Amino acid sequence: MSDAAERADQTIHIPIPDVLPETNHVGVYHGPDDIRVEERPMPVIGPGDVLVRTSSAALCAGEAMPWYHASPQGKTLGHEVVGVVARVGESVTRFKPGDRIFAHHHFGRMLSHQSLRGHFTIDPYYKSVRFDPGSIADYFRLPAQLVEGDSFIVPDSLSDDAVVTIEPWSCVLGGLKVCGIQPGDTVLVIGAGFMGVGFAVLAPLFGAGRVIVSDFNPWRRAKALELGANAVIDPSAGDVAEQLRALNDGLLADVVVEAVPNAKVYAQARELVEPGGTLHLAAPGAPGTDWVQDSARAYFDEVTVTSKYSADHHDTFQYFRLLKAGRIDPSGAITHHFPLSKLPEAFKLLEDADKSLKIVLRPDDLF
Amino acid sequence: MSDAAERADQTIHIPIPDVLPETNHVGVYHGPDDIRVEERPMPVIGPGDVLVRTSSAALCAGEAMPWYHASPQGKTLGHEVVGVVARVGESVTRFKPGDRIFAHHHFGRMLSHQSLRGHFTIDPYYKSVRFDPGSIADYFRLPAQLVEGDSFIVPDSLSDDAVVTIEPWSCVLGGLKVCGIQPGDTVLVIGAGFMGVGFAVLAPLFGAGRVIVSDFNPWRRAKALELGANAVIDPSAGDVAEQLRALNDGLLADVVVEAVPNAKVYAQARELVEPGGTLHLAAPGAPGTDWVQDSARAYFDEVTVTSKYSADHHDTFQYFRLLKAGRIDPSGAITHHFPLSKLPEAFKLLEDADKSLKIVLRPDDLF
Amino acid sequence: MSDAAERADQTIHIPIPDVLPETNHVGVYHGPDDIRVEERPMPVIGPGDVLVRTSSAALCAGEAMPWYHASPQGKTLGHEVVGVVARVGESVTRFKPGDRIFAHHHFGRMLSHQSLRGHFTIDPYYKSVRFDPGSIADYFRLPAQLVEGDSFIVPDSLSDDAVVTIEPWSCVLGGLKVCGIQPGDTVLVIGAGFMGVGFAVLAPLFGAGRVIVSDFNPWRRAKALELGANAVIDPSAGDVAEQLRALNDGLLADVVVEAVPNAKVYAQARELVEPGGTLHLAAPGAPGTDWVQDSARAYFDEVTVTSKYSADHHDTFQYFRLLKAGRIDPSGAITHHFPLSKLPEAFKLLEDADKSLKIVLRPDDLF
Amino acid sequence: MSDAAERADQTIHIPIPDVLPETNHVGVYHGPDDIRVEERPMPVIGPGDVLVRTSSAALCAGEAMPWYHASPQGKTLGHEVVGVVARVGESVTRFKPGDRIFAHHHFGRMLSHQSLRGHFTIDPYYKSVRFDPGSIADYFRLPAQLVEGDSFIVPDSLSDDAVVTIEPWSCVLGGLKVCGIQPGDTVLVIGAGFMGVGFAVLAPLFGAGRVIVSDFNPWRRAKALELGANAVIDPSAGDVAEQLRALNDGLLADVVVEAVPNAKVYAQARELVEPGGTLHLAAPGAPGTDWVQDSARAYFDEVTVTSKYSADHHDTFQYFRLLKAGRIDPSGAITHHFPLSKLPEAFKLLEDADKSLKIVLRPDDLF
Repeated sequence: MSDAAERADQTIHIPIPDVLPETNHVGVYHGPDDIRVEERPMPVIGPGDVLVRTSSAALCAGEAMPWYHASPQGKTLGHEVVGVVARVGESVTRFKPGDRIFAHHHFGRMLSHQSLRGHFTIDPYYKSVRFDPGSIADYFRLPAQLVEGDSFIVPDSLSDDAVVTIEPWSCVLGGLKVCGIQPGDTVLVIGAGFMGVGFAVLAPLFGAGRVIVSDFNPWRRAKALELGANAVIDPSAGDVAEQLRALNDGLLADVVVEAVPNAKVYAQARELVEPGGTLHLAAPGAPGTDWVQDSARAYFDEVTVTSKYSADHHDTFQYFRLLKAGRIDPSGAITHHFPLSKLPEAFKLLEDADKSLKIVLRPDDLF
Repeated sequence: MSDAAERADQTIHIPIPDVLPETNHVGVYHGPDDIRVEERPMPVIGPGDVLVRTSSAALCAGEAMPWYHASPQGKTLGHEVVGVVARVGESVTRFKPGDRIFAHHHFGRMLSHQSLRGHFTIDPYYKSVRFDPGSIADYFRLPAQLVEGDSFIVPDSLSDDAVVTIEPWSCVLGGLKVCGIQPGDTVLVIGAGFMGVGFAVLAPLFGAGRVIVSDFNPWRRAKALELGANAVIDPSAGDVAEQLRALNDGLLADVVVEAVPNAKVYAQARELVEPGGTLHLAAPGAPGTDWVQDSARAYFDEVTVTSKYSADHHDTFQYFRLLKAGRIDPSGAITHHFPLSKLPEAFKLLEDADKSLKIVLRPDDLF
Repeated sequence: MSDAAERADQTIHIPIPDVLPETNHVGVYHGPDDIRVEERPMPVIGPGDVLVRTSSAALCAGEAMPWYHASPQGKTLGHEVVGVVARVGESVTRFKPGDRIFAHHHFGRMLSHQSLRGHFTIDPYYKSVRFDPGSIADYFRLPAQLVEGDSFIVPDSLSDDAVVTIEPWSCVLGGLKVCGIQPGDTVLVIGAGFMGVGFAVLAPLFGAGRVIVSDFNPWRRAKALELGANAVIDPSAGDVAEQLRALNDGLLADVVVEAVPNAKVYAQARELVEPGGTLHLAAPGAPGTDWVQDSARAYFDEVTVTSKYSADHHDTFQYFRLLKAGRIDPSGAITHHFPLSKLPEAFKLLEDADKSLKIVLRPDDLF
Repeated sequence: MSDAAERADQTIHIPIPDVLPETNHVGVYHGPDDIRVEERPMPVIGPGDVLVRTSSAALCAGEAMPWYHASPQGKTLGHEVVGVVARVGESVTRFKPGDRIFAHHHFGRMLSHQSLRGHFTIDPYYKSVRFDPGSIADYFRLPAQLVEGDSFIVPDSLSDDAVVTIEPWSCVLGGLKVCGIQPGDTVLVIGAGFMGVGFAVLAPLFGAGRVIVSDFNPWRRAKALELGANAVIDPSAGDVAEQLRALNDGLLADVVVEAVPNAKVYAQARELVEPGGTLHLAAPGAPGTDWVQDSARAYFDEVTVTSKYSADHHDTFQYFRLLKAGRIDPSGAITHHFPLSKLPEAFKLLEDADKSLKIVLRPDDLF
């Protein structure tokens, strides 16, 4: 484990072996307390596929939600990644061995009802293709549809740490596009995990004025301030609405981003939106848990409720351009690096959701 | 009581007496079963005010919601009106006696936080000025702020019936502006009252493709079809989602307009929105009644929830332009005319919410 | 030649022969006065291609602009079509013989810079694939990229005449999406050819209030009125701005659609836009011809200038949905039908641009 | 003259004398080479007016365009100002003596055609009310309409220098709202005067990725870089399009902001827009000078042309919120401070348009 600054210049160029290893180290989720690194066969690529050598891959908090990832035979982990093309299938023209790429684990299609209405990510097709296994591995196969999909070469000017944020913070960017932020609006973000702070970091690029972050965790509140929030709120210190009004000229927030996967927090968040504002749901409640709100106020307050699942190719394109232009500095949000063999320890840190934001793993020989 | 066609050419020019009557007949709500026409003093106008002789005034379903209008001393009725200027205060320059006008009972202001973010109608100022008494009266005072507000002369080419729809259907228009209809979208309207059919009539001007209306009441379903809906659904005939899919290429609706003031219907309406679509709340649930939804689906379905209260000056401006251009024909939605003295009977019809849509009253001497 | 009404029920089902003819009749442009129907070999389809038997195909005014279509060896004509799948390549799964389809002659791609910014049609890829030969032919090959592209089965409820409007009026629909029409706006269309009247017919679906059409040709002005324009202007009858103001409460038009391929008319059209409005260019000036405007007014008038080339898959999707919902009736704009052998006569009518709008051809054996 | 840093803490609180001076020092433009500070009578305020003691007021480049400001009797200068309320008319309730305010010299109205379509500033009413005399003066009268208009108290946390940018950079903000910037877009600003650099500084708040500034003047190019531009272009160093492509992955700019008041530069700017992008006119060409462009490309390139004149109350509201939130730091763009008596020298600096951006004046006794 080492800090981001130390690693920044070590991450760009990684060697591709002439002879591939026979087995692949793969991170597998068998349950919240049973995370393993297993030896599995090296993926076999088809004519349109690409074999990617993982350079850096990150853990996603979504992978720590048991209801989301439970699978009897274990679930391979990882979809936030930068790697180098190790081998290409015979019909691949888009990439060549040695290319350093961002690989996106899902890709929409042009002609579905959902896609044609601008919602690529909720078309079932979007999730139907994925990495084999996940990117928490030494190597993974990028199937043909993703080779021709939302994967692209990244410049050396972007560190591994920067590139691994493309997938998760493109989700944030996609969310911000539906938040209806008007220039100068006050944005309250509830929950200062990696996604929450992402909203705080990116919201000013969408016109946000004051950005205020609420979290029970003092370490995360400090992180939010360090990464640019104007102010933070500690819900245990008193009424959140009152604290918010004290920071915001007596008003509630024009836009509230709810980034805690909990239906009860949905209801609390709703109370913090100034009439005429937006409540943006940025994290799912657990299936079967109810979100309850007053129906008269649902009508009279003119509060728009939006949500956004995952990131499409527009989101990554736009995030990538912002990243290259230096508009976003994600380095402060990458808090930990581990060798792949220490995945169980890294995953524990993720589940603790305490003094960490984004946790990055690298194959042991690259660490 | 007479039908709309008969009355169309009788409504334009009404006389202004040289000597005003001493008393005014005024419709007053004392309770759902206690609607009275009372004799009250003629309103006294100030320097900036205008006295309007009501030509036609309509009942609003909102006035039949006890929780909304309850008031110990009785609540004067009416805010949908066309009239003729009877007297003007000494400083009034905008209107002169004899002008036939649409008068709007509320008006926003330019510089509040809500107004500056585009939400004029939820700024408390908006509702702070109103008619004196209501427009269900022989005469009413238009206060100075409304004289300088969203009131304007209407051309003879528009019938009284057309002009009385400006206020209520401008609310519909304002709602449609936040529904996010994409060209060709299927719109389902739940509840075929006057506001619901208004959404059905106006939605095509905002790009709607198929417009489908759901209502338990067969007379209202027939009305919806007569006024242009592509199809109707009878919820008592089976599962609404199934009926909807059968009418819509197997899909739910891209946009669902919930026009029934009932929180339970909110929850049902939510189930009828295709992922990626919009649920628009067009009628308030009763205060204190809960709207319950699944929190995971609130996130994953990317269903945007919007609402819109009342109409601002942009809405009336735009509606008026559409009306003058012949893009909207509201005549079929005006189902009843009564003399003011028959207000109790008319109000009963409103409360029955059965075989009526918009009910118009005229002072007895003009009927 | 026969009128639209007569043909409406004859157009749906056409037979596919068991044995294909050896030669294909193909419309070819060799110059404005040299249009021929040539016998050419039947197209040979590859594994992913489809052979389409043309049912109805229309002429496009763009094909009468010599600078646009000049080609030494002759240019095959036609890209507005409805047909029936005659044969499919071995890998085709999307269509089967007998399917009645709309085939789009171009298709964008997901990942270009232009596409990712919403401009699919100006990405050079868009035009890189096309019919072989054109659709003014007995048969044409739909290449694999278009089989997987913006082509789709059409229901029997839509006549051939309706389906042939999908391509051209989807271009109109795409244009209207960038016109910035606000609800109730007055729209002036300059030029009442098939595209101009398309703007007049479709503008109300985008919120237009008054729609006024200007054209020197009295037959076309009458057509515009018949198809729903509120009023027409004859530029030879006096100053157009004055005529416009007389029809529009003293104002110029909020949105002016310039549908005449002539730079001088661009300059005239600019003078007819109310400050704060939009000038939409819906037809190209000839290359090398200058559009001159006053630079101070270009700044001070806040007139937005937009244009839109061709139609992408969103435009056709949306137009198709509107068509199926009955929101658009294009039948009055289809003015002529010819058998393919009479193409020279039909093309002369197109070039005359006088008493015709859309001209449809059918293979002789289907006429 | 002193630099911004030195002055920052001197500017907030200024004394209001118990007895007003009898004469007022007023900056008057009699011609480009004839700028005078004249002694004029102190303005007399009416019941709704306010007398403002100027604290800091800035020069605007628009005031150096002879065609814009020529007036036989001299034109009083100044409309970018922060001041303190010295006296209030008897009916004024919004402000009291001692309030430190931003005063806006123009204000729209709610109900004009232009305002109702969102274009407040081009409604002739907008400019019909103004300061008396200008704000380049010891004192000026704020007429009643502006007292009730877009003027507001500013917090001590904002320096005078920050507040004087509200008017001019709100114009920039208003312009950016119509530029159609998509997240990550490359923005090229042509002309690095105070307004041009304003676009460079503010564009990232509207989603801009790379911001590139072009100017012949090396001092201004350096300023643009210092204030946050990603790169600059020297048009005298070679073909601008080539330089732009070299900085932008081979592409032209998605959005070009033309901030030079010259029709020839309009034409050059047009050539630098990537197809599908926007050309935003941010400075007026001189009346009577022609902007010439190719009409075919005007159509085929799908380049949207926009402009924006001045700032309305939404723009100032939003800019003010951004300023309070610390999203904008205008201090580096305030390059000079002068006492009012040195106005001719200051104005010469403005006209030179060389090594200066914003020039601020203060009454001599406050300097």
